[in-house]
Amino acid sequence: MNTTPQPYAGNAFTEIDFEKPGRQIGFINFPHSPHSDAWGVTQVPIAVISNGAGPTVVIEGGNHGDEYEGPITIGELARDLDPGSMQGRLILMPANNVHAVLAATRTSPVDGLNFNRVWPGDPMGSITQQIAAYVAHRIFPMADAFLDLHSGGSSLDILPSAIIEPSGDADLHRRNVAAVQAFDAPYTVVISNLGDKRTATAAACAAGLVTVGTEMRGCGAVSLDALQICRRGVRNVLAHLGMLVGDASPVCAERPILELRGPSAYVYATEDGIFEPFHANGEQVSAGQPAGRIHRIWDMATKPLTLHYGADGIVYGRRHPGRVAPGNCCVVVASPYGERK
Amino acid sequence: MNTTPQPYAGNAFTEIDFEKPGRQIGFINFPHSPHSDAWGVTQVPIAVISNGAGPTVVIEGGNHGDEYEGPITIGELARDLDPGSMQGRLILMPANNVHAVLAATRTSPVDGLNFNRVWPGDPMGSITQQIAAYVAHRIFPMADAFLDLHSGGSSLDILPSAIIEPSGDADLHRRNVAAVQAFDAPYTVVISNLGDKRTATAAACAAGLVTVGTEMRGCGAVSLDALQICRRGVRNVLAHLGMLVGDASPVCAERPILELRGPSAYVYATEDGIFEPFHANGEQVSAGQPAGRIHRIWDMATKPLTLHYGADGIVYGRRHPGRVAPGNCCVVVASPYGERK
Amino acid sequence: MNTTPQPYAGNAFTEIDFEKPGRQIGFINFPHSPHSDAWGVTQVPIAVISNGAGPTVVIEGGNHGDEYEGPITIGELARDLDPGSMQGRLILMPANNVHAVLAATRTSPVDGLNFNRVWPGDPMGSITQQIAAYVAHRIFPMADAFLDLHSGGSSLDILPSAIIEPSGDADLHRRNVAAVQAFDAPYTVVISNLGDKRTATAAACAAGLVTVGTEMRGCGAVSLDALQICRRGVRNVLAHLGMLVGDASPVCAERPILELRGPSAYVYATEDGIFEPFHANGEQVSAGQPAGRIHRIWDMATKPLTLHYGADGIVYGRRHPGRVAPGNCCVVVASPYGERK
Amino acid sequence: MNTTPQPYAGNAFTEIDFEKPGRQIGFINFPHSPHSDAWGVTQVPIAVISNGAGPTVVIEGGNHGDEYEGPITIGELARDLDPGSMQGRLILMPANNVHAVLAATRTSPVDGLNFNRVWPGDPMGSITQQIAAYVAHRIFPMADAFLDLHSGGSSLDILPSAIIEPSGDADLHRRNVAAVQAFDAPYTVVISNLGDKRTATAAACAAGLVTVGTEMRGCGAVSLDALQICRRGVRNVLAHLGMLVGDASPVCAERPILELRGPSAYVYATEDGIFEPFHANGEQVSAGQPAGRIHRIWDMATKPLTLHYGADGIVYGRRHPGRVAPGNCCVVVASPYGERK
Amino acid sequence: MNTTPQPYAGNAFTEIDFEKPGRQIGFINFPHSPHSDAWGVTQVPIAVISNGAGPTVVIEGGNHGDEYEGPITIGELARDLDPGSMQGRLILMPANNVHAVLAATRTSPVDGLNFNRVWPGDPMGSITQQIAAYVAHRIFPMADAFLDLHSGGSSLDILPSAIIEPSGDADLHRRNVAAVQAFDAPYTVVISNLGDKRTATAAACAAGLVTVGTEMRGCGAVSLDALQICRRGVRNVLAHLGMLVGDASPVCAERPILELRGPSAYVYATEDGIFEPFHANGEQVSAGQPAGRIHRIWDMATKPLTLHYGADGIVYGRRHPGRVAPGNCCVVVASPYGERK
Amino acid sequence: MNTTPQPYAGNAFTEIDFEKPGRQIGFINFPHSPHSDAWGVTQVPIAVISNGAGPTVVIEGGNHGDEYEGPITIGELARDLDPGSMQGRLILMPANNVHAVLAATRTSPVDGLNFNRVWPGDPMGSITQQIAAYVAHRIFPMADAFLDLHSGGSSLDILPSAIIEPSGDADLHRRNVAAVQAFDAPYTVVISNLGDKRTATAAACAAGLVTVGTEMRGCGAVSLDALQICRRGVRNVLAHLGMLVGDASPVCAERPILELRGPSAYVYATEDGIFEPFHANGEQVSAGQPAGRIHRIWDMATKPLTLHYGADGIVYGRRHPGRVAPGNCCVVVASPYGERK
Repeated sequence: MNTTPQPYAGNAFTEIDFEKPGRQIGFINFPHSPHSDAWGVTQVPIAVISNGAGPTVVIEGGNHGDEYEGPITIGELARDLDPGSMQGRLILMPANNVHAVLAATRTSPVDGLNFNRVWPGDPMGSITQQIAAYVAHRIFPMADAFLDLHSGGSSLDILPSAIIEPSGDADLHRRNVAAVQAFDAPYTVVISNLGDKRTATAAACAAGLVTVGTEMRGCGAVSLDALQICRRGVRNVLAHLGMLVGDASPVCAERPILELRGPSAYVYATEDGIFEPFHANGEQVSAGQPAGRIHRIWDMATKPLTLHYGADGIVYGRRHPGRVAPGNCCVVVASPYGERK
Repeated sequence: MNTTPQPYAGNAFTEIDFEKPGRQIGFINFPHSPHSDAWGVTQVPIAVISNGAGPTVVIEGGNHGDEYEGPITIGELARDLDPGSMQGRLILMPANNVHAVLAATRTSPVDGLNFNRVWPGDPMGSITQQIAAYVAHRIFPMADAFLDLHSGGSSLDILPSAIIEPSGDADLHRRNVAAVQAFDAPYTVVISNLGDKRTATAAACAAGLVTVGTEMRGCGAVSLDALQICRRGVRNVLAHLGMLVGDASPVCAERPILELRGPSAYVYATEDGIFEPFHANGEQVSAGQPAGRIHRIWDMATKPLTLHYGADGIVYGRRHPGRVAPGNCCVVVASPYGERK
Repeated sequence: MNTTPQPYAGNAFTEIDFEKPGRQIGFINFPHSPHSDAWGVTQVPIAVISNGAGPTVVIEGGNHGDEYEGPITIGELARDLDPGSMQGRLILMPANNVHAVLAATRTSPVDGLNFNRVWPGDPMGSITQQIAAYVAHRIFPMADAFLDLHSGGSSLDILPSAIIEPSGDADLHRRNVAAVQAFDAPYTVVISNLGDKRTATAAACAAGLVTVGTEMRGCGAVSLDALQICRRGVRNVLAHLGMLVGDASPVCAERPILELRGPSAYVYATEDGIFEPFHANGEQVSAGQPAGRIHRIWDMATKPLTLHYGADGIVYGRRHPGRVAPGNCCVVVASPYGERK
Repeated sequence: MNTTPQPYAGNAFTEIDFEKPGRQIGFINFPHSPHSDAWGVTQVPIAVISNGAGPTVVIEGGNHGDEYEGPITIGELARDLDPGSMQGRLILMPANNVHAVLAATRTSPVDGLNFNRVWPGDPMGSITQQIAAYVAHRIFPMADAFLDLHSGGSSLDILPSAIIEPSGDADLHRRNVAAVQAFDAPYTVVISNLGDKRTATAAACAAGLVTVGTEMRGCGAVSLDALQICRRGVRNVLAHLGMLVGDASPVCAERPILELRGPSAYVYATEDGIFEPFHANGEQVSAGQPAGRIHRIWDMATKPLTLHYGADGIVYGRRHPGRVAPGNCCVVVASPYGERK
Repeated sequence: MNTTPQPYAGNAFTEIDFEKPGRQIGFINFPHSPHSDAWGVTQVPIAVISNGAGPTVVIEGGNHGDEYEGPITIGELARDLDPGSMQGRLILMPANNVHAVLAATRTSPVDGLNFNRVWPGDPMGSITQQIAAYVAHRIFPMADAFLDLHSGGSSLDILPSAIIEPSGDADLHRRNVAAVQAFDAPYTVVISNLGDKRTATAAACAAGLVTVGTEMRGCGAVSLDALQICRRGVRNVLAHLGMLVGDASPVCAERPILELRGPSAYVYATEDGIFEPFHANGEQVSAGQPAGRIHRIWDMATKPLTLHYGADGIVYGRRHPGRVAPGNCCVVVASPYGERK
Repeated sequence: MNTTPQPYAGNAFTEIDFEKPGRQIGFINFPHSPHSDAWGVTQVPIAVISNGAGPTVVIEGGNHGDEYEGPITIGELARDLDPGSMQGRLILMPANNVHAVLAATRTSPVDGLNFNRVWPGDPMGSITQQIAAYVAHRIFPMADAFLDLHSGGSSLDILPSAIIEPSGDADLHRRNVAAVQAFDAPYTVVISNLGDKRTATAAACAAGLVTVGTEMRGCGAVSLDALQICRRGVRNVLAHLGMLVGDASPVCAERPILELRGPSAYVYATEDGIFEPFHANGEQVSAGQPAGRIHRIWDMATKPLTLHYGADGIVYGRRHPGRVAPGNCCVVVASPYGERK
């Protein structure tokens, strides 16, 4: 732990004892007073597995409620990981945006907020802000490393990849790159969310934690392949961090790093219609090349409108639903990260 | 044309002249009087391409509003098919459930109805019933053949396949099988919707039309592969019916026929949670074998619940969204059709 | 009374005694059992003013819930008309689609139905169907004449006019025309709703009642001018029918009759956008002439799309809200009725 | 079984074997194809306990989704009743309006219908109509008796009582009265729903079944007292019908029978506001006496409006929520049934 | 008045003159510009009754919109209290969360906020924040005492009680206890809302006002008993504060004080289902004892789940609706306050 | 440019080059991550037309989404204005509250906010706050003048008028008055929004820009007359500002200035019902005179309630929809501005 964080000033409570060895499974309870339940709580699931000296690692799933490989992996660790087989403390949070998880939506149905745009949260704010504040102010100060396990969600179909949150701290950046490469996903990508600092991984970096992100396919579905990648990658990172011994797969050292180079990486819809993509994920494309067409299937007299790529690279992700409206992200291109190293 | 249908008794109108040669693109207008538009119409797109003697073929898309390969194919035919290259009359309806198509939903947002459970419709009913009645009472009597181009929709991921609607008329059944096999999809499947006769294809069979269905992937997305299968299959069937000449791909005569054998073909969820399937579409499975697990990712103390197959065959389709509730169809198994031939 | 109607078979009840002289104001109570009120009723307001021998006249308002000149006029009659000043029986129903009236919507928020598309109703149907059935089966058999006071509603801005429901019974048609002309509105128009027979006025004609309709401006607003026309016109008709004595304004005998000549009377939107009309209500226009433009104000690079008239005549009404979607009725043209007399 | 019912013509299916002895717990599956689940089913829970010769008794709960004493009692019987301790066949359906049960609403969130206003249902109708049709066409023909366990639901607070559905068949009526009195509830009341024949108990009577209803408190809550009454009453009736032996509590033979005497039994709100009742359930009241006041708490300058009783009797039930709107049932008065015996 | 509060910086206005003697009934008008009314206001009802020297007492109702005994009592005072019978100034606000009061919901339908979690408000915030700011910044500075009249609301059934808001100011705390005991409710309870300081009573304490809270039953209903307790209790407190003379009931001096001892006082649901409580309000219970069961009435094969108390004391309140979801407060236990005195 | 504004700190991006001469039409893209589109953008349309030296003028439309004359005028300028015919830089933003424009609502359907109550915005806030921040922090610093083109919107029918935002800076106020009078609308009115400083025009004044507002009729409709006034007025102001040469209409110098004098200018509804106004817009009225009546058309026994004016002047605007609820603004009176000059 290497920062002096803001102390937690909210009124969440839990029966979990973060200092206790062994396995505990429970909830963080946030008092919540909607029409349907004046004196109730929002229950955010948490497990702690602890054994002797070693790093404290936090694994988050359910940052968005429609991304599943991470939460399944976290639940399996919580039930199956033998405390005797590890060193340190593992804090498992599979469903942090819990109202969204129950509703299978990206954003919270309670306050409409995107959990990944409210960090470092507000302990007296709405429920989404409160949960982020608990993690940022109460959990992060105990932690050395943070894994935030995303998939593409309902609207995106993304190549399974491990994600590097860019950090201005060169040493932390180097350690983040090493941890992300340890995950050994098919692709490794630097994603800055166009510079937005209100994400969980940006907050973790700001708190000095070694930080690993993922994008494990998506479409609001469970991918069999990506689930295997996720299970294996998480164990790889825990081994890399010294928590698991003898468990890591050999990492493919040669994997290149990609990045999303600002707005030109994104192909946006400019009309209502149905988007027909021209290339599969992983295909090589170049700026100016046609990327797909928007068909107005309810208006046969209108010709389809062609969209074009704005960058060279590979197709890293595509919009999942066929229906598009102006502004929707239809395709994302990832380019080699070399130029900025 | 071989039936004496109920004459159309509704008040829809159109500028399309079904007897005129050449290409026409327009709309069927259904007077519709909601709050937002007292004297307006619901516009259902239609195109007619006609040239000399030959069969009348109707192609429907947008029976459900979140299935896209068919509507894209239909729109391309409407704009691109040279009347001089064909014989007969082609009636193209890419978005029959037009309110659902605009909303990208399976069922109509206007009256909540599933267009494929209201046939033969009601010309004085709600808007969905009116559109079905127009097709059943006004279009079917002009037609010799009907193609209903479905995909799996938002909730299902299905093997691209051509579908046989079972008919009690042995001769019609034989002609249907031949037309469906002409489509030359990777799979050919007999689907009875558990005997429900309120579907478009059941109504077409009842009207004596040669009837071809499809299921072109799904997930609410456009599939590049399935779109190619659909474009090619539709032209194959039009060639088989004698409308297009010299255009058909050679059909793979050996393709076996599958069927969904009643309730045992379906694996239903019995709990709330996230369904992890164990097999990809197309894999061989057998009754009693584990089919997948439901994870309660918001409740780590609960072990996943295993579901089992009820039939032998191949995995024909799977639920697309990860989130399931009791009763949701998680997996569908297709079995060889041989036994009943 | 000249028909043998279907007897009323529902379970509505009222404290109103239709045979009692003098003034009564109350409600028809329809048992209604939604979530919020298991054993409650829907209360439809009614007043009866009766004095000696004479015709029974029914005046309906609130057929749609966002049309106001009629209901205001009816309420004033209910409170202010001296029974001693009239002959016969006046049945006043200002808010028949009462849930829509309370919500200020065209259609009922309870069952989504348009009250003017369910006649002659169903005493065991949904609440909208039940109310229509009560009027058709219980009230119409007592009546000699029916006035259905509409305005344009939220979506239409219409020239204040008295409306003739076309009847196949030549004698009734003649008496209807006379009664409608007695109203002495600025315009008299024959409107058939494109032949739809599920309206209140069509049902009244079918029951043999002298029938008068109106369209009193609209826009979901109260028009000062149209309110005066309505107050005066209703009294004119009651005098014409022999109910009020010495009360009628002199009728302008020369007023021509207009009609809406089928689909060509309507200009429909073909795009999303904002419709800018080119002519005010009452202006003379001709088929083929530009009627207005649709501006896509969120997409400045796209030029406005021009719509054209399909008939010669005067602009009888226009869409009120600026925002249009495909199928919306933008302009209505009324043409001289002479040709079909 | 004593009627020749319409055979069931729907496509629901179940693994329950109605002819098999012993205990079975499962579901009736109704194919249901909404946007969220194209090929899924609605699962209606059912249990059958069978042992040797004896009557077939059907117990329904969850006719409305916010009434709980019956469903809890039914679930306990399904799990705990020893087949060896009974004679005949017990068919237990605790949640027939299952979508409403899951949503805790009176009416179905799927089609908006009140399950108790659709009988005898429609096997090809909407889901609520389909479930009623299954019970009426498939279950009733197997049955000798029917218990329909209601409580007051979210909007009513009712005296715990057993209910007699009036039957025109004098012998059936006599047997119904005997069975209802065997329930031995604190009150016994004849309720005709103002003559509506579309209820489950009216359909059961029409099918010739001995029929028992209940109203077990309500308010959308579980009542400790009423739950005990319900558990004991159901066993009393099963003993009375010869299914359970040696289990019946001694019945209080002297309990008088009450009835709701048409519209005058109901006190309806005439204004928006908060209803303050003047008497508790069970108190003696008389026609003309003040029943309560409506306070407009957001408008202090307006005096409360007093409502009055329309009948002599006891306060049998009251509206539960404080907020009222015109037409809401505020109080219900039950009067002695003697006059009509 | 004993604090230097933040001056009110909003733009609400009123015709009420707080310095004028006698009775005034009116509204505070908050400019509010939603879609439906661009230049309108939200009207919050207020009355002021003033006579000579004496304390200024503010009574709030409608902090939540589904709690009725307080607002009814306040409206009666506003209409019926003779200014000549009192000393000082009484400020009556029966419906502060006025949009929620009209909708009968706990939280505001306009901005979704819980009025009792936004204090001291924000004069430029959303409408709920603006109303709180008006009371905190404009009304509190004029006041000596504050009564906040709550009931349990739609989700809770609570023992009628007067509530002490804990204050760190020992003298104020002593005066608060005396005023609360003067209310003479059946129970007196210290409730800290788990330490949340964003409530109206916490804001009043922070402003140095003598503060009295209540919980008057609940369930979203009007309780006859609690309404009498509330009417009498308010007058008792006004007498205690020196505003009413000769009006106070003799207070039962021996009533013990209870408290809710943090999280252990609450029994939370851990599953979806129907909660059957085991004890009535007021019964003595102890930690570890079974508190009730959750029945999954749609899934008879699953056994009910038993919940247990976490504290010794009496059952102070229970969840009202039968349907529960994880995190819902099912039971609340109040324990003797002695330990912390 | 005459202030040192807060630099823009958000992450919106655009292909528009504000320094480039000639015509550009495009969008400002705001990264926006809702459920339906994780990596998409909200596209706010913008055009820049630039030619040589001269002032920078910003014209905003679509501040509210149901006001149309301004956006139509702006789109026409963007497409049709010849850069060679002007001097300086014209920044055209026709649909700033773009989600509301697409939905035809006053307030944003995305975050529920009124765009004209969030200035100067928040670059990290919700989408409405972000757009305002972009205009205030990125556009205003480049600008010399700001035109904010409003109409009355769905709820108000207003006399076409040019609006003066009051400024405390006497010199700016003088320049504002001159620019507003140059618009040459039928009426010129000072409107302070009851002192609210969170509007676009207040923010523009605070930034030192010459500021012109408008109210161009309303009712949610396009007014033919007001559209001509708007087209002409905008060109008049651009000529006045030195941007267009030889284009200005001669201004009627004698037009008096009116103002809305605080709360007394507004007549608010005090009951639910239908408001019948007594005077047309533009008529002279005086304080105390009856302004209209509220009819409860669903309750004929209740007499209409009369409302009265609170100020002398002309009727400047009226509520458009007939249906009113307490607090709704029914009429607005404008009075001569002389007194405060």
